Amino acid sequence: MTTESPLMLALDLTGTFAFGLNGALTAVRAARLDVVGVIALGMITALGGGVIRDVIIGSVPPATFQDWRYFTLALLGGLIAFTLSRLLKRLTYLITLLDAVGLSIFAVIGASKALDFGLGVGPALLLGVVTAVGGGTIRDLLVLRIPTVLRSELYAIPALVAAAITIIAVKTDVYGLPLALVAAAVCFVIRMLGVRFRIDAPGPPRHGRDPDLPHS
Amino acid sequence: MTTESPLMLALDLTGTFAFGLNGALTAVRAARLDVVGVIALGMITALGGGVIRDVIIGSVPPATFQDWRYFTLALLGGLIAFTLSRLLKRLTYLITLLDAVGLSIFAVIGASKALDFGLGVGPALLLGVVTAVGGGTIRDLLVLRIPTVLRSELYAIPALVAAAITIIAVKTDVYGLPLALVAAAVCFVIRMLGVRFRIDAPGPPRHGRDPDLPHS
Amino acid sequence: MTTESPLMLALDLTGTFAFGLNGALTAVRAARLDVVGVIALGMITALGGGVIRDVIIGSVPPATFQDWRYFTLALLGGLIAFTLSRLLKRLTYLITLLDAVGLSIFAVIGASKALDFGLGVGPALLLGVVTAVGGGTIRDLLVLRIPTVLRSELYAIPALVAAAITIIAVKTDVYGLPLALVAAAVCFVIRMLGVRFRIDAPGPPRHGRDPDLPHS
Repeated sequence: MTTESPLMLALDLTGTFAFGLNGALTAVRAARLDVVGVIALGMITALGGGVIRDVIIGSVPPATFQDWRYFTLALLGGLIAFTLSRLLKRLTYLITLLDAVGLSIFAVIGASKALDFGLGVGPALLLGVVTAVGGGTIRDLLVLRIPTVLRSELYAIPALVAAAITIIAVKTDVYGLPLALVAAAVCFVIRMLGVRFRIDAPGPPRHGRDPDLPHS
Repeated sequence: MTTESPLMLALDLTGTFAFGLNGALTAVRAARLDVVGVIALGMITALGGGVIRDVIIGSVPPATFQDWRYFTLALLGGLIAFTLSRLLKRLTYLITLLDAVGLSIFAVIGASKALDFGLGVGPALLLGVVTAVGGGTIRDLLVLRIPTVLRSELYAIPALVAAAITIIAVKTDVYGLPLALVAAAVCFVIRMLGVRFRIDAPGPPRHGRDPDLPHS
Repeated sequence: MTTESPLMLALDLTGTFAFGLNGALTAVRAARLDVVGVIALGMITALGGGVIRDVIIGSVPPATFQDWRYFTLALLGGLIAFTLSRLLKRLTYLITLLDAVGLSIFAVIGASKALDFGLGVGPALLLGVVTAVGGGTIRDLLVLRIPTVLRSELYAIPALVAAAITIIAVKTDVYGLPLALVAAAVCFVIRMLGVRFRIDAPGPPRHGRDPDLPHS
């Protein structure tokens, strides 16, 4: 089981903690929620992607509900973010950075766990991306924002790249913590370059649009 | 099986009916939906928390999909709310009250069902809260409101208290309908006191915030 | 297994493709997303209903994650919609039409698959509707619209009718591609008549409403 080693668990918990901080800071920054809202959003962001992943592959109850360390780190991230939010400069950039950390790690863990559960290459790719973007998408919906995965600036694509590297590494029997870190690092770098240089994906071809929204 | 007794089933169905009324009245009041929308939102609110709970613990198909009484009571709640909404005074208060009833009961049922399925204390606490706030959170998202669980006024916390009382009662072998009602009543009272006196949880420490929303 | 025949699979894939086109065109039209957002929304719309259906009946990993054809057709729908959106006239009407195609097919497939997995008549009806409206509801939430199933114009009701016809056909042993197409066609016609003549379901009884939104 490639995700069961202590090092992989540590990586997964790191992603959980990063997303916990990220969600909680988003709650402080974007929605100005109180302490319960801040911690709730932190925990939902941290645990959401993994719960979706485990429900889809049939690994229930999800790891989050079986191993108290996920829960604790998600909670801790929320508490720390709530406490320190006053002291933190450049909050927006930090939020983006933490999101990129969680995205990168969860893409790798999601893809490798999918292979562990016998999914094929295509499904494992998809599940890597779903795991990576799941928590953040729920986070954005809860504060009524169009999710980052749709607004992009290279968000789903780096997750896809990380999942692809992971799957190639597993299939060629070279997967392990070093390769997992490489895959995550590649995702992280692409994501942050996208943010830095605003390398957005190409927009849709221009055409006349009615100003009113469609009905269905 | 602590949730399988007729009395526990009656309690669970009461919560379902309360949430059905609540969701339907929310649809009338907040979103001015037509009859299908009103009944749909009532049913989603009533059944959402239980479906999430059962999917997470792996009890599929969910109770909702196996026992026609859940479905019927959710539908009935929606129909009654739609029919009587004209006659009801203080609709906002009634909506809040029904939400508190559902919240309280579902926290107890969620926590005890989690223990039935072999989850530990921490996960059972979490699942009690998720069950309690799940339906209402989906309801709020569907009418594009930031969910109550994030905006709070003591919402997740009373659910947590009710789940904790439930778990202690189960672990000390004194759980039964009386204790379940006590746990639910404690949650209900805390929640309604919070609403009455606007005892909000403490807000985040103040600090300079940019007016624009962060990107991720 | 009534959903396992090649013809039923072809029908299911047709619905997936229609929803992929629909979601992607919605992304172009309603939210003006870039290419990744367009394809992501197309895929989520196409695959969302089926994933919810399979998770609820316990058929995990969902068909979507096991059979590459779902994934490919969802992706293809997104790509085609992105490429051709410039050329398409009457985009709003086309979006509504494709949504009705997906709705109709998924109501039939959802109900018959529920029966395959041993669910009763009531649950199969419910699951047919959930499968039909699931992907579109997630689509609407992601671009921050109140879902069509709540705003209606006959949306859940035609899906319910199609699911009912399907269940009657299965129970009387006359189910097969012809009956599946009839059930889907009935749903499609009711839905499009509703759109054409704006036959909305009756609204709630009028009564004095406070202008402010309720709190829970």
